[in-house]
Amino acid sequence: MPFLPAPLIDALHNHFGQRFSRGESACLQHGRDESVHLPQPPQGVVMAESTEDIVLTMQLCAAHGVPLIPYGVGSSVEGHVLAPEGGISLDLSGMNKILAIHAEDGDATVQAGVTRKQLNDALKGTGLFFPIDPGADATLGGMAATRASGTNAVRYGTMRDSVMATTTVLADGRLMKTGGRARKSSAGYDLTRLLVGSEGTLGIISELTVKLYPIPEAISAAVCTFPSIEAAVQTVILTIQLGVPVARIELLDTLSLKAINLFSKTTLAEAPTLFFEFHGSPASATEQAETVQAIAADLGGANFEWASRPEDRSRLWQARHDAYFACLQLKPGCRSFPTDVCVPISRLAECIAATYEDIAEVSIPIALFGHVGDGNFHLIVMVDPANAKEMAEADWISQRVVERAIAMEGTCTGEHGIGLGKRKYLAREHGEVAVDVMRALKAALDPHNRLNPGKILPPLS
Amino acid sequence: MPFLPAPLIDALHNHFGQRFSRGESACLQHGRDESVHLPQPPQGVVMAESTEDIVLTMQLCAAHGVPLIPYGVGSSVEGHVLAPEGGISLDLSGMNKILAIHAEDGDATVQAGVTRKQLNDALKGTGLFFPIDPGADATLGGMAATRASGTNAVRYGTMRDSVMATTTVLADGRLMKTGGRARKSSAGYDLTRLLVGSEGTLGIISELTVKLYPIPEAISAAVCTFPSIEAAVQTVILTIQLGVPVARIELLDTLSLKAINLFSKTTLAEAPTLFFEFHGSPASATEQAETVQAIAADLGGANFEWASRPEDRSRLWQARHDAYFACLQLKPGCRSFPTDVCVPISRLAECIAATYEDIAEVSIPIALFGHVGDGNFHLIVMVDPANAKEMAEADWISQRVVERAIAMEGTCTGEHGIGLGKRKYLAREHGEVAVDVMRALKAALDPHNRLNPGKILPPLS
Repeated sequence: MPFLPAPLIDALHNHFGQRFSRGESACLQHGRDESVHLPQPPQGVVMAESTEDIVLTMQLCAAHGVPLIPYGVGSSVEGHVLAPEGGISLDLSGMNKILAIHAEDGDATVQAGVTRKQLNDALKGTGLFFPIDPGADATLGGMAATRASGTNAVRYGTMRDSVMATTTVLADGRLMKTGGRARKSSAGYDLTRLLVGSEGTLGIISELTVKLYPIPEAISAAVCTFPSIEAAVQTVILTIQLGVPVARIELLDTLSLKAINLFSKTTLAEAPTLFFEFHGSPASATEQAETVQAIAADLGGANFEWASRPEDRSRLWQARHDAYFACLQLKPGCRSFPTDVCVPISRLAECIAATYEDIAEVSIPIALFGHVGDGNFHLIVMVDPANAKEMAEADWISQRVVERAIAMEGTCTGEHGIGLGKRKYLAREHGEVAVDVMRALKAALDPHNRLNPGKILPPLS
Repeated sequence: MPFLPAPLIDALHNHFGQRFSRGESACLQHGRDESVHLPQPPQGVVMAESTEDIVLTMQLCAAHGVPLIPYGVGSSVEGHVLAPEGGISLDLSGMNKILAIHAEDGDATVQAGVTRKQLNDALKGTGLFFPIDPGADATLGGMAATRASGTNAVRYGTMRDSVMATTTVLADGRLMKTGGRARKSSAGYDLTRLLVGSEGTLGIISELTVKLYPIPEAISAAVCTFPSIEAAVQTVILTIQLGVPVARIELLDTLSLKAINLFSKTTLAEAPTLFFEFHGSPASATEQAETVQAIAADLGGANFEWASRPEDRSRLWQARHDAYFACLQLKPGCRSFPTDVCVPISRLAECIAATYEDIAEVSIPIALFGHVGDGNFHLIVMVDPANAKEMAEADWISQRVVERAIAMEGTCTGEHGIGLGKRKYLAREHGEVAVDVMRALKAALDPHNRLNPGKILPPLS
């Protein structure tokens, strides 16, 4: 890896002062993520506070031929923030201004470093909320860049559906506006959706406008346990096929529940479990709940426990969101080798059943949970990264699960993104021609490969 | 315009026989659309019946440097099917096979020439429907290419939200698969959404997979008249801001109603009117209807007339869909100069009020109706294309309306597309940098500018 050119270092110091650092701890912090990927630190970190800061950093990096890697809160699990080719990490967490809340139109414009919780706090009193929650309190820029979703996506969609407009800094430092605040438009190529999911490889989103939704009049949440994973999954499939507009429907397996109880001091039954949430008018929320209860009862679902007070619901969903970290505590010192497949709902039962056969083949502990209403689930494969046998097992099961999902017309990643970790599956999922076209788009927008190089596109063999 | 090269003519004749025509009537039929654009016929027409036909035609056109223009049913109103640079029109209406209906997953895969009504007929008995209806019985390929929507978009979204996957023929004849059947994916650049709305300029969609929805248990439709356009528009704004999940909410002005009554032999009150449709469980549909009736009543809405029998609803929506052609009959021999702006809902009342001030300034008759739940409305400007004064007036009002919508953070086209007619507004709406990026994408995917040349991107000045 080449050293950073001295004139670049000088220029960044001159402009950013203390907000530019080459210190070891800053670089290490910005070169690691929440997964099994080994750290690959950048050679410097810029703490951006404005779109102009991004433009300037981009112009300098372009002039000196140095890569630029956008960084939000580092909650990626696919190596997005790592610096395999060195360069500058551009930390956008300081770009945390909420620029406009258009309550009357149901949208908000924010700087890329605003987190989902921060936005929801700012919305208090408006009667609106921002529904997309990937678990971590991620930045909206990072969520847009990875096309994130989470527990509410079954009802409210993903960042693909949420992002209406962006301000984006291009590889040559030019500022581009995409989209607008109209609810729909047929005006030219959909640059907004090209950027959503592009993982910082086509441009750096500095501001974005997202859709908001009215807080439903009635919200109720419930937990229900099942005699088997199959019974729980069948409940999900029938619920979705009936078109019940559930807001959340989450599966957690026995090991996940055990981990949650230990981590969150809860006393949930340690059995295959569905977490539900229903949104609507009081009548509609009740109707949905009754329909789902009837489906669950037919399949042996028992102990429907309701959380109707807001604080009980918060505790329930916090427990769900902590599942990832809770699992990691089951095996001290382990890291997660994450999987994130998503399949058509009709294949979900078969896909999960076959996955458990794979799980039985390996020695490492593996928990399963996920956003099953979308056909999306995760394995938390608890590995010691230094243990070659464990890593080989993790790699084997990850590959099995991905290949099965793709064979079922699904995807290798429902919401985490490709990053470094899933590049090897890109052509298998989309075919060589689509990958060639992705390369052509990358070359058109970032001809010198400065923007988050090494991510999404597999190395040319 | 250069003649078609003789070897290309020979090759197309050899392969397609009667399915390749250079006859005057075939070319004229394929070189005109439903609007004021003067016909610009292609130099030949190929009637495709398979993806292989598209590939072969594309390869031949590429080899001979001849443009290729995809054609569905010709219902565009922005000149999409015209051949300003000559070339071959590729008629996809014979590609009308429904390839798969996955009722259990709520999706269907069709050839690009399948129309929306054909798909809905094929879905009978499945309990599912395809909601997007641009009025005309357009092909799904054409609807995808223009990012079409229509009356149901306020509830079910547009083709942007509907298209899950495509098979696309690239400019060099290669076949590309995009997307998949999982409900969500973060696997790489969103090529599907890059193609949706690209108007045949980046590739020709030969097959596509679209989302289906459960037919709601209860459907009710109603018509309500208002003392003024303002009162009707306020009813829409409040309904949307309250988050009532109306399936359809359509505004028609007095002149539109007069035209509909004449054309469809209906006896609807000739006053500012909203057409509604409510979908849901019986309880939820009733609840929605009651909420909207209360809002309307407060604003002077009267004569809520219900159409609950399916045949009455069909008649009502057919009348709504005939509004375009009904208006054209008001002035024999006229053509429509269409407008299609879409603004944030909070600006809709102001936008429509200012539009009526413009209408008062011109001599030509103009009707106003549209998908106001999305903030989208059309003017049907009835002009004699041979009358320069009328055309100048039409151009003036179109420009006024577009500039106002863009100033309100809206769009020059909510659902028709850019085509030839709105190119001059592309940079005003998106800025020069975004248009430059669109040019770069076009150059990356169609370097020799063979795919529907002249559409979307304005000529380089």
